[in-house]
Amino acid sequence: MRIGVLTAGGDCPGLNAVIRSVVHRALTGYGDEVIGFEDGFKGLLDGHFRPLDLNAVSGILARGGTILGSARLERARLQEAAENCEDLQRRYGIDVLIPIGGEGTLTAARMLSDAGMPVVGVPKTIDNDISSTDRTFGFDTAVMVATEAIDRLKTTAESHQRVMVVEVMGRHAGWIALESGMAGGAHGICLPERPFQVDDLVKMVEERFARGKKFAVICVAEGAHPAEGSMEYRKGEIDQYGHERFQGIGTRLAKELEKRLGKEARPVILGHVQRGGTPTAYDRVLATRFGWHAVEAAHRGDFGMMTALRGTSITMAPLADATTRLKTVPSDRMLEAESVF
Amino acid sequence: MRIGVLTAGGDCPGLNAVIRSVVHRALTGYGDEVIGFEDGFKGLLDGHFRPLDLNAVSGILARGGTILGSARLERARLQEAAENCEDLQRRYGIDVLIPIGGEGTLTAARMLSDAGMPVVGVPKTIDNDISSTDRTFGFDTAVMVATEAIDRLKTTAESHQRVMVVEVMGRHAGWIALESGMAGGAHGICLPERPFQVDDLVKMVEERFARGKKFAVICVAEGAHPAEGSMEYRKGEIDQYGHERFQGIGTRLAKELEKRLGKEARPVILGHVQRGGTPTAYDRVLATRFGWHAVEAAHRGDFGMMTALRGTSITMAPLADATTRLKTVPSDRMLEAESVF
Amino acid sequence: MRIGVLTAGGDCPGLNAVIRSVVHRALTGYGDEVIGFEDGFKGLLDGHFRPLDLNAVSGILARGGTILGSARLERARLQEAAENCEDLQRRYGIDVLIPIGGEGTLTAARMLSDAGMPVVGVPKTIDNDISSTDRTFGFDTAVMVATEAIDRLKTTAESHQRVMVVEVMGRHAGWIALESGMAGGAHGICLPERPFQVDDLVKMVEERFARGKKFAVICVAEGAHPAEGSMEYRKGEIDQYGHERFQGIGTRLAKELEKRLGKEARPVILGHVQRGGTPTAYDRVLATRFGWHAVEAAHRGDFGMMTALRGTSITMAPLADATTRLKTVPSDRMLEAESVF
Amino acid sequence: MRIGVLTAGGDCPGLNAVIRSVVHRALTGYGDEVIGFEDGFKGLLDGHFRPLDLNAVSGILARGGTILGSARLERARLQEAAENCEDLQRRYGIDVLIPIGGEGTLTAARMLSDAGMPVVGVPKTIDNDISSTDRTFGFDTAVMVATEAIDRLKTTAESHQRVMVVEVMGRHAGWIALESGMAGGAHGICLPERPFQVDDLVKMVEERFARGKKFAVICVAEGAHPAEGSMEYRKGEIDQYGHERFQGIGTRLAKELEKRLGKEARPVILGHVQRGGTPTAYDRVLATRFGWHAVEAAHRGDFGMMTALRGTSITMAPLADATTRLKTVPSDRMLEAESVF
Repeated sequence: MRIGVLTAGGDCPGLNAVIRSVVHRALTGYGDEVIGFEDGFKGLLDGHFRPLDLNAVSGILARGGTILGSARLERARLQEAAENCEDLQRRYGIDVLIPIGGEGTLTAARMLSDAGMPVVGVPKTIDNDISSTDRTFGFDTAVMVATEAIDRLKTTAESHQRVMVVEVMGRHAGWIALESGMAGGAHGICLPERPFQVDDLVKMVEERFARGKKFAVICVAEGAHPAEGSMEYRKGEIDQYGHERFQGIGTRLAKELEKRLGKEARPVILGHVQRGGTPTAYDRVLATRFGWHAVEAAHRGDFGMMTALRGTSITMAPLADATTRLKTVPSDRMLEAESVF
Repeated sequence: MRIGVLTAGGDCPGLNAVIRSVVHRALTGYGDEVIGFEDGFKGLLDGHFRPLDLNAVSGILARGGTILGSARLERARLQEAAENCEDLQRRYGIDVLIPIGGEGTLTAARMLSDAGMPVVGVPKTIDNDISSTDRTFGFDTAVMVATEAIDRLKTTAESHQRVMVVEVMGRHAGWIALESGMAGGAHGICLPERPFQVDDLVKMVEERFARGKKFAVICVAEGAHPAEGSMEYRKGEIDQYGHERFQGIGTRLAKELEKRLGKEARPVILGHVQRGGTPTAYDRVLATRFGWHAVEAAHRGDFGMMTALRGTSITMAPLADATTRLKTVPSDRMLEAESVF
Repeated sequence: MRIGVLTAGGDCPGLNAVIRSVVHRALTGYGDEVIGFEDGFKGLLDGHFRPLDLNAVSGILARGGTILGSARLERARLQEAAENCEDLQRRYGIDVLIPIGGEGTLTAARMLSDAGMPVVGVPKTIDNDISSTDRTFGFDTAVMVATEAIDRLKTTAESHQRVMVVEVMGRHAGWIALESGMAGGAHGICLPERPFQVDDLVKMVEERFARGKKFAVICVAEGAHPAEGSMEYRKGEIDQYGHERFQGIGTRLAKELEKRLGKEARPVILGHVQRGGTPTAYDRVLATRFGWHAVEAAHRGDFGMMTALRGTSITMAPLADATTRLKTVPSDRMLEAESVF
Repeated sequence: MRIGVLTAGGDCPGLNAVIRSVVHRALTGYGDEVIGFEDGFKGLLDGHFRPLDLNAVSGILARGGTILGSARLERARLQEAAENCEDLQRRYGIDVLIPIGGEGTLTAARMLSDAGMPVVGVPKTIDNDISSTDRTFGFDTAVMVATEAIDRLKTTAESHQRVMVVEVMGRHAGWIALESGMAGGAHGICLPERPFQVDDLVKMVEERFARGKKFAVICVAEGAHPAEGSMEYRKGEIDQYGHERFQGIGTRLAKELEKRLGKEARPVILGHVQRGGTPTAYDRVLATRFGWHAVEAAHRGDFGMMTALRGTSITMAPLADATTRLKTVPSDRMLEAESVF
């Protein structure tokens, strides 16, 4: 069998572990050939690819990023790919394409699959918001990085009687904020799934100070936003430099809290450190299992599907399921955290 | 409601997170009282306990160990506890006992439960070998510590053309060896679940050297052992100093490989560092959820049960289920690793 | 002897290690008494203090922040302290005051010393910019945190063919940027000590892309600024929310590079994570030695001095020396980095 | 100029950082050529080498081990090298040899230098025991790894009322034990420089238990040994498997303490994890500076010398100085730790 593999979308710790695992399983398990397309679907369309043997994936398990590169592709060119599915497949002589990517990539994968390409997808997002899988690799690493930051900020907040607002990733789903907030013991957590009342945060901080705990750490997903009328805030506003995030909710909320509380409040925007670097052991294992099972699925002819974690098992889920509904934080998970506002 | 909580058995990162979560949920969610027994069931029998309020659990979320202490208890005294269940319950005025512990502790918990004590258990083991729950807290931390060690040993093995044998914890189940071996990219993994052939390991190393990869890292669970006749080895042998583990499988295997391969092989025995210190974010979240749900179960009157992770949800499982069968590594998980011997 | 100790100024990993060391050495070495003033000089003036015995400092060695708290004090009140030096000393019955702090604190310490208070200072700054000492504790931790961030950003920059601009702390001295830039292998380093030419950065990135290295990481001290005419930039400008740093040099430079290069450039502002949390082993050792030697100096009557690292030895330096001249990065150190612009 | 570089001796985090720095400085600073000999002096004698350009050292700064490999060489062959110095130099056309290594390597380097080879040495040892330099790279990483282990063991010792004996590296000098012991807050530190009285350790532990601190962590250098008559112990004894270290001082001492104290005492032997893996930021900076200055020295014709850290500067020291006297822990440094026995 000849397998094509590509990585697309934003960076995510564990991509290399998937690539390595696909190559290992395919070569040593089945005697397959594997080629890797460069810079995502772009490489597929433009003919940029290279053969991947065991040496090519040696030493990459613990490395962040992706040895294949990743790039955005305009929708028009994806359409072009879908229309030329058969040609593309013939051109590279591949029996299956294994695209590793997030919602956008899996949607593209589905387009190709619908157009006749044999596709086995591997879901990828640090945001953990893909339906059909319990968890995605990259998420654990992002939560770990955010938790370490909260750990560090707590001591400095406490010593200086400050409020710290940590903005973590998560535009549409608040999983990183929820779990890093719980793991770091944040006193307030704000999620995209539930508009927050600034008054509630103010009250929480004041109650803490009243009982002698003269500091607070608030963990805010970048997609969180205040409830209507709770605070002046224009969602999606762009600053004069074209960057939304540095005028984002973290900075705004810190400013607002400082004004209302009359106490120092400082924002920290974690940014891209959450999606780079060496994956945690958890993510390496999950990524390795996904790669292994993708090859198995390819050999079973289980096309139009993607790998998924269900409990302790890796199963297959239709690509369609993954891309039609975002997995957001349900209210019972918010209850468990006790500090979701 | 008045809740008694205790920790028993070996150390496990996340114990404090459970205690903190029980106290938080009970006090702020229900206005309960919580008392903590010191040094496990010993404190329950000997009357050593202290009230746990919010201040008592402040700052312990990320701390290893257990603020309540832990100690072994002879079976006779456990029997004594079971026989005086009603007295004990009356003596402390507790409506429920929440013991946090491993197989031994949960068996004791079941004895008390059978004798009439309202009990909600919280399972704990770095070994991840408790049935009825997908994972236990402490396991992720142990795997992380072991993986970091393998990461470090790989570079030194490679530079010096050596074989490194890393012995990790896991007397009866090989989960830590499996997952740290996968995450660290060990070239051989030996588990208690499957006796290994030394010849196979020798062959693997020789093939690696033959294709220019002049080093190998082998990850061995402390409970792994060679197949009958594969290597001279007396299981459970005690050295002249009374310590079994330093004459354990790691050291033996390194010695054997050195002899057969004619190459340097070095053992590294990770030992207790795997079960101490700050828990990973994953373990803090799981421990916190377990504590929260234990209090919920107590209020529902869900006695004789223990918390369990099933997929993404926390559910309750009968204490009986947890203690009758060990959860070992199934063969399909060994297949995924590709390096299990 | 009766020793008063206080911590003042911004947070710095290692403060607790100094406090612990002072208490250990004073109590077990000399049978002294130690009291700790709360929230810096404020506690000294307002009579907020507590006795510090061995139990009070148990378990704090590895903890970030300061158990004594820290707060800003207006100059007027410091003047008040200086004028009432004798009264204050009598009031608390202290034979020596050991203030632990940065430039501002040491200046205040010198005022008190000049006014007759027996003072032994301990220098503290993550910025490493205090003259008379080779290094200050807290610096190594800040560099470690910044380096880990650069390590993570490098893989994500490489996979996505991006320019990453990391802004690290250092308003007046670029030590953190220099050493984390060197340790992380940043392709460009910008320091407050040398105004940079944006053109040079642009050229460096273009040359990298030209030879196939399609990414770059630039490490910028928050106090770095472009050379006159090199880029539109108003130093010290305040955004509409009152925060300077989020419109700081990191964001500006990323924006400017994106415009000139026509490639994605992203800023990451590390902020307060650099000054909180557990200190590195290096910082714990240095802080412990400083505390030990401060007590020795107190017993020798070596007042008006502060502890200092010189080579491998701890020596004493006049408080005056520390506060009159900032230790900035000399040009030969910039040469060694090869990537300072 | 044509530069030959090689790494020899045991593994040490930072070796790759030196190689990278030599190549960077030589190529971009002077337009030199650099070749790397494989497996230490063996490559020099056997003609195994490869050219090192910028691509060859790309991405190695943070990687443990050495891309050039390392191997032991018998003294006879070193003699051979010294006798054929001129031939060797001509054979490879090198103007200078930069050997990176420990005491043995530097002694060999001196032999070659005395025989007429232009040599600039770079000292390397995780043990920090080379005279003429304040610190060596690799040491900070080893101390960090050991400190993290002690941090983890402390919580588990405390929860289970145990004595933990951690054996760290350091055969002849106790720097790693001293600094990791101080940084980890070990209650007892045993160094090769001072034979310890077991009675003193027993007394210390008993006093701790008496005042309610029911645990202790003792950090022992592998080269530490009991004072004459203090405990039955045959130094250098070899077990039946030919391994000395697993019958080493850590295991013996734990056994002895358990017997005398009547309390659980457990040994943990850290072993090779201390000398592998990614270097700390400190070690990367020091290694980079050493590499840079080695090239400068080569261009100045400063032969027969090695790089050295003195205070904050890199200076040159005669190879002779480095190899005639071991830098051991002086008694005033032991005093500072207060827990050296």
